[in-house]
Amino acid sequence: MSGLSEEQREAVIKAAFEAKEFSYSPYSKFRVGAALLTSEGDIIKGANIENASYGGTICAERTAIVKSASEGKRSFAALAVVTDVNSAISPCGLCRQVIREFCTQDMPIYLVSADYDSSGTGTGRINETCIGKLLPDSFGPEHLELPRGV
Amino acid sequence: MSGLSEEQREAVIKAAFEAKEFSYSPYSKFRVGAALLTSEGDIIKGANIENASYGGTICAERTAIVKSASEGKRSFAALAVVTDVNSAISPCGLCRQVIREFCTQDMPIYLVSADYDSSGTGTGRINETCIGKLLPDSFGPEHLELPRGV
Amino acid sequence: MSGLSEEQREAVIKAAFEAKEFSYSPYSKFRVGAALLTSEGDIIKGANIENASYGGTICAERTAIVKSASEGKRSFAALAVVTDVNSAISPCGLCRQVIREFCTQDMPIYLVSADYDSSGTGTGRINETCIGKLLPDSFGPEHLELPRGV
Amino acid sequence: MSGLSEEQREAVIKAAFEAKEFSYSPYSKFRVGAALLTSEGDIIKGANIENASYGGTICAERTAIVKSASEGKRSFAALAVVTDVNSAISPCGLCRQVIREFCTQDMPIYLVSADYDSSGTGTGRINETCIGKLLPDSFGPEHLELPRGV
Ligand SMILES: [Zn+2]
Ligand SMILES: [Zn+2]
Ligand SMILES: [Zn+2]
Ligand SMILES: [Zn+2]
Repeated sequence: MSGLSEEQREAVIKAAFEAKEFSYSPYSKFRVGAALLTSEGDIIKGANIENASYGGTICAERTAIVKSASEGKRSFAALAVVTDVNSAISPCGLCRQVIREFCTQDMPIYLVSADYDSSGTGTGRINETCIGKLLPDSFGPEHLELPRGV
Repeated sequence: MSGLSEEQREAVIKAAFEAKEFSYSPYSKFRVGAALLTSEGDIIKGANIENASYGGTICAERTAIVKSASEGKRSFAALAVVTDVNSAISPCGLCRQVIREFCTQDMPIYLVSADYDSSGTGTGRINETCIGKLLPDSFGPEHLELPRGV
Repeated sequence: MSGLSEEQREAVIKAAFEAKEFSYSPYSKFRVGAALLTSEGDIIKGANIENASYGGTICAERTAIVKSASEGKRSFAALAVVTDVNSAISPCGLCRQVIREFCTQDMPIYLVSADYDSSGTGTGRINETCIGKLLPDSFGPEHLELPRGV
Repeated sequence: MSGLSEEQREAVIKAAFEAKEFSYSPYSKFRVGAALLTSEGDIIKGANIENASYGGTICAERTAIVKSASEGKRSFAALAVVTDVNSAISPCGLCRQVIREFCTQDMPIYLVSADYDSSGTGTGRINETCIGKLLPDSFGPEHLELPRGV
């Protein structure tokens, strides 16, 4: 379905687990790691970086996106997200909007349980989704260009 | 479906049109108005209030929500959103997340074309949706409470 | 100094205390109330409205500003902020930037201790400041218009 | 004053100019580049990554900070910021709050004119400042811990 090899999928998931180690989450104590696979095959990692103001918090997914985009890599093949929770946790709406700016509607997004085990013998699950499903009927750059009515 | 009378629906849509007049959008020139119908029958209006930093911008939907919540009204029956565009424009991901915090999954959300005419004789359309559809598989308060895996 | 009467100052401070009661702060447990005095003499209240995403949180000061601006009231004479802490707590940088968009550099901002007592017999203090002091050398709308160099 | 060698200062400024090239700013057309010098001597670059929602925009300074923090580098020696404008442009309040979370009050922040020329023969200026000056009397992590009054 996603056109990724199993090896690529496992690589981006592994990177999300590694990324989680650098989470700065003293307020929520909710660690999140994310990793992007770029179209060129690079892996870019991000973690949630919280802020005392709460509103200044930047999630793992957005950290990974702005990190990659600020290095000129804006074409993506996959995103993986992992937390410390033993179930697949979904991105917040802020992250969905930022993902929407750069990723295709059907780019695979892997939401990975903390106890995921690539051997397939564990109970940890992957929820494979995409931004077309997570942010249906989305607002995007093209809407800003629409003609205004009278 | 939504349990609202036609009169209530028209009232909240009319309020969204009125709200749009107070949009502060010198950067995007994209005016948005929103209106909430609270469970007690009050109507609370919001408009987008932009900021030179761009990141500090607060959309019409969030303005309406925080306005109402800060007056102790946090139970809602409907939301209407209108712009200057002659088609139904959807809320951004940031607003969907904030709506998610307070509204039920199936509360009616009316996305209204700028040329909507309640007489039904015009071409303007309403897209009736809900946060369950706009932010499926959402992240919410309950996820922060989940036990962390080992 | 600020051109406000003592009566006006006490009214806006009292409103900030009242506003705090409607704080929605289940994550930080840090209640904040704010109140604006508009140039026309109206008082507009705001409280912090937090969000499970943390990043979607909107502080009391910003809530008050967007509430007022979305009603067409964008000229202000004073702002008061109060928390549950027995000392004067300062606005975060996000709020300072939003205040900057609408308020003059020297508009009085009263940061009020939770144990403030207008009789002057208590220990609670007011720290009177302004956005010129809180956000010196600020970024604002005029900078977006500056000519780009070669 | 800042303890940086001239060579280090020029290196971080040069990196900010390079970072600007990767700005994604289709909405404001206001390109910004930032670079951090970490305490270990690494240089981390960031650019502003805008979003159609406007509110989802992340500035160059915040991009650099979350990029570095998500790689476990949270101790900084300097920050440089440059735009396309021929004068020193200051960080927005959102960025000041995020800088505040990780940087010391007196860490040098170089705000650099687009026509800066390290030879010193040009007209381009550097405004050297610090977060203690840009966000005085700031809100920070320690305030969240303060005891609540009765
Ligand atoms: Zn998020
Ligand atoms: Zn929005
Ligand atoms: Zn704030
Ligand atoms: Zn900024």
